Amino acid sequence: MPHTLIHPPHTPLLIVISGPSGVGKDTVLQRMKERGLPFHFVVTATTRPQRPGEVDGVDYFFLTHDQFADMIEHNELLEHAIVYNDYKGIPKQQVRQALASGQDVVMRIDVQGAETIRSLCPDALLVFLSTETEEELVGRLSQRKTETPEGLKLRIATARQELKRLELFDYFVVNADLQLDAAVDTIVAIIEAEHHRTRPRRVTL
Amino acid sequence: MPHTLIHPPHTPLLIVISGPSGVGKDTVLQRMKERGLPFHFVVTATTRPQRPGEVDGVDYFFLTHDQFADMIEHNELLEHAIVYNDYKGIPKQQVRQALASGQDVVMRIDVQGAETIRSLCPDALLVFLSTETEEELVGRLSQRKTETPEGLKLRIATARQELKRLELFDYFVVNADLQLDAAVDTIVAIIEAEHHRTRPRRVTL
Repeated sequence: MPHTLIHPPHTPLLIVISGPSGVGKDTVLQRMKERGLPFHFVVTATTRPQRPGEVDGVDYFFLTHDQFADMIEHNELLEHAIVYNDYKGIPKQQVRQALASGQDVVMRIDVQGAETIRSLCPDALLVFLSTETEEELVGRLSQRKTETPEGLKLRIATARQELKRLELFDYFVVNADLQLDAAVDTIVAIIEAEHHRTRPRRVTL
Repeated sequence: MPHTLIHPPHTPLLIVISGPSGVGKDTVLQRMKERGLPFHFVVTATTRPQRPGEVDGVDYFFLTHDQFADMIEHNELLEHAIVYNDYKGIPKQQVRQALASGQDVVMRIDVQGAETIRSLCPDALLVFLSTETEEELVGRLSQRKTETPEGLKLRIATARQELKRLELFDYFVVNADLQLDAAVDTIVAIIEAEHHRTRPRRVTL
């Protein structure tokens, strides 16, 4: 005779790590990967230039503008946006396949993109990554050597606006200087907790 | 100049560990205490006889029926109920003081009591502790040597009813045989996650 399971069914989560530019979304994702956590990490498609150390197909799919336009045309992106003059997009098929196999899917995305994911999938799990204070965020953005003064000003203004969008998200996680692992620990705890909800999130895309 | 904090304010949680008789609520609470977690563990008042090893004022406040009646009369209990012919109740002042000091408050309570807490405080964090399967729960209840056949039958029937109240709770945690620490880890993860909600629970009593 089969045993009568009491608990709600296991359902995979769609986990969105977002937050203003400069909070360390890539670094947090990188550390999560290093820990060998059993999630599917979405590889974002982008037209931005490959940075030193980045691997095509691992960190991003680095595409030409033509290739990116093709993906948009064939409706192969879950969402896409122009982020500081570069296109970024989430390949739809990749996310669907991972969810169908029962895996939790983790993606990093800008605040605007997170908003799109929320409207596509109200039950997505949205994590807002940030610094402790606004001053710390501005300080971090200012230290980036890759910025022109105009680029920096734009990023700071955008970040300030994005901090006001907190209520769009489910959770707020501080990624403090030198405390990367604490931020990752919290994200892992959130995912663990979410798998124990009595009313599981229903992820459909 | 003060720094502009981004994150929501820290608010203490009212954490209710509940579930059918026999799932190990006391054992889980005991292990949480042993770990030295920074929570206030509510000491429940009860008229049931002290069991070997239990300490008055630590495990429970062991009261006579007269003393318990006085507490009810003076409205000093958050809730109280007759559980298998014994009175149990949550001292109100103790909970309020701990919350006022900013501490998370953890209490164990039967399913009926959890329902009362939910109606008193809709933002309480309710955890349903259970076994993996219904058969396992029945098996555990049957192994208790302290039960009369009638007592056992009543507990099993009640447990079966209580399993249907899952939707009253926020989270479901399995306390499997020999995996007590896994259950405690999950509860700790839930509390950690809950402190990172963008919309904190508002606990008022």
